[in-house]
Amino acid sequence: MRDFTWHNPTTVIFGRDTVPLIADHLAAAGVKRVLLLYGGGAVFKNGAYSKVVEALGGKGIEYVELGGVKSNPTVEKVREGVARAVANPPVDAIVPVGGGSVFDSAKAIALGARYAGDVWDLFEGKQPAGALPIFGVLTVSATSSEVNDIAVLSNQKKAAKTSLVSPLIYPRVSVIDPSLQTTVPEAQMVSGGIDIMSHVMERVFDGVDGVELMDEQGYAMLRVMMRLIQDLRDDPADYDARAQYAWAGSIAHSGSLSCGRGNRGDLASHKLGHSLSLLFDTPHGMSLAVMMPAWARYVARENPVPFARFAEAVFDVEPGDDEDVAFDGIDRLEDYFRSVGAPTTLKELGVKEADIPRLAENAGAFAPFGVLKLLNAEDIIEIYKLAY
Amino acid sequence: MRDFTWHNPTTVIFGRDTVPLIADHLAAAGVKRVLLLYGGGAVFKNGAYSKVVEALGGKGIEYVELGGVKSNPTVEKVREGVARAVANPPVDAIVPVGGGSVFDSAKAIALGARYAGDVWDLFEGKQPAGALPIFGVLTVSATSSEVNDIAVLSNQKKAAKTSLVSPLIYPRVSVIDPSLQTTVPEAQMVSGGIDIMSHVMERVFDGVDGVELMDEQGYAMLRVMMRLIQDLRDDPADYDARAQYAWAGSIAHSGSLSCGRGNRGDLASHKLGHSLSLLFDTPHGMSLAVMMPAWARYVARENPVPFARFAEAVFDVEPGDDEDVAFDGIDRLEDYFRSVGAPTTLKELGVKEADIPRLAENAGAFAPFGVLKLLNAEDIIEIYKLAY
Repeated sequence: MRDFTWHNPTTVIFGRDTVPLIADHLAAAGVKRVLLLYGGGAVFKNGAYSKVVEALGGKGIEYVELGGVKSNPTVEKVREGVARAVANPPVDAIVPVGGGSVFDSAKAIALGARYAGDVWDLFEGKQPAGALPIFGVLTVSATSSEVNDIAVLSNQKKAAKTSLVSPLIYPRVSVIDPSLQTTVPEAQMVSGGIDIMSHVMERVFDGVDGVELMDEQGYAMLRVMMRLIQDLRDDPADYDARAQYAWAGSIAHSGSLSCGRGNRGDLASHKLGHSLSLLFDTPHGMSLAVMMPAWARYVARENPVPFARFAEAVFDVEPGDDEDVAFDGIDRLEDYFRSVGAPTTLKELGVKEADIPRLAENAGAFAPFGVLKLLNAEDIIEIYKLAY
Repeated sequence: MRDFTWHNPTTVIFGRDTVPLIADHLAAAGVKRVLLLYGGGAVFKNGAYSKVVEALGGKGIEYVELGGVKSNPTVEKVREGVARAVANPPVDAIVPVGGGSVFDSAKAIALGARYAGDVWDLFEGKQPAGALPIFGVLTVSATSSEVNDIAVLSNQKKAAKTSLVSPLIYPRVSVIDPSLQTTVPEAQMVSGGIDIMSHVMERVFDGVDGVELMDEQGYAMLRVMMRLIQDLRDDPADYDARAQYAWAGSIAHSGSLSCGRGNRGDLASHKLGHSLSLLFDTPHGMSLAVMMPAWARYVARENPVPFARFAEAVFDVEPGDDEDVAFDGIDRLEDYFRSVGAPTTLKELGVKEADIPRLAENAGAFAPFGVLKLLNAEDIIEIYKLAY
């Protein structure tokens, strides 16, 4: 078990009819004016927008708003947000209402509002000078952005989808009312569920020894998540399933499963998927449904052990030769993804074989990367081929 | 799944050679003078005392000290601590160095130093006015006191062992160097391990539906904890086992397993055990080894379901009639406790049959209590009889 520091300062308010509480927390923090940030029409449909606006009004909190944040959020929208945040009068806090993309954008805006240069600098390694506090309302669970210190942003001009990590961007308060997520379309729920599963798998597949406590909790989460995705396909209004899905979404990438691992997960599949999102606008979770099994098959040849343990614990594969058990487990994982309607090949995403070099070149810009196996440019092209 | 609020502000520094970092955190917080609190000789033997004193000196932080905190810590010692904390010059922070008893006492002192009346008032429901910050070094894992908002204190004159819960007493920083725990005597390690297991069981046995995500993580922790206790009996210097035991000790009662349950666990076994600790000075974990199976047998008659699920998940008992499966699981739990050298009957603790009314009367002062089943005075006497 490796050394670590654990600190997660976010307060989560979780449950039915909790959205108005966001205004109580803003008022208690002395916030007078906020940037209300959201995506498309979902927050109008699920009622979150009107609940937030009403609650802000009830506390006399002014707001300026910015909608139109898209999945795979862009630096251009963030720059718009920064401009509104620092306009006269400036805002005291950012209030994202939506899913991971809206939270990620809010984090970037929060930093950008306290940075003199262009916000993208911060995604290229420049140090932030501070951040506005974030008080958010989560309406789509998947990324854990509502409880972590990570923001992921795309910059089309630079052909980059990049993560930024800073303790400044833990949301101060995140309100999660799972009942609002009943209206999330099934494909998006499945995609988000696969993202949640991937956050767990990226930990248990890292090959680190002496962390069975975290591994076993991860396997438990995977078994439960697989049932929850199925339950929600059967009945989108199943509150207990929706709530557990939401909370799994928060804890999977909150850092708790990384304690003692010495890494934040082997994010290779995420990085390989990011290029798909960037070049083909593939939904994040669907990119993982394709890339996770391909990556696993590629690296399990050299190190089947983490995949064998996973196969035994999650799919009840009988112990035996580790390589056989590992590949059996990866097959079953892929079968599961297909069973819930997810694509598992690049072809299904509309990618042509001729696109593979372009994908590999894009992902290769960050190479070498990976924890279980450090992937170089050649490895990356082989994995995309396996995924094809 | 029930509504909840999640917020745990404690920073944990975890790993080898981390003890001196406590002084960095004290200095960063502007602390000039602390109350250094500890128990018996263990902190001299394991080196924690000298490491802390040296690190404080390195940062120019003054200290006044108080040793002699005992297991099942007392209000008398806490009053001594309060007196030293508020003496001239007063201290800015409390630095517990030790296990749960020392942390619990530090929390009570932290509150007492900011309260005008007698500190025991706070354990009888009076509202605290504030608290000194706590920066601790954990040298014996078991209670989660290093990461939670709970303090348990005994008052012999009032024949009471009572819990206090306040967000004011989350430690600001807790440093955990598992390698220091190599010198913890085996019986104490086993007792602590059973305490940790009990914190998990008290959640999964509460009978709340729709929280499989937390239940399955709990079962996973129990399976791992059972192996870790055995591993540490075989090799006290097994660092990975020691570290995982320590971290399980922190998370079991940190609140994370309670999310969505609507309760902090069915603490009936803890309450029944507290009377044993109070009247017979039984180590806390050993009191649980005796009371948990007796309580489980008593309540499983009416509601075998949580025990059946536990039996299947933790002991691989074949599914069947829930009551049979439940009792099989409880038998195996008791067998496990015996296999690691713990007592499982009151007799083994030196309790006489004639003592049962006194025990029951003491525990009954808090009745009715319990989540799965609300226990009244008659239930309590029956459970002690079962435990005899």
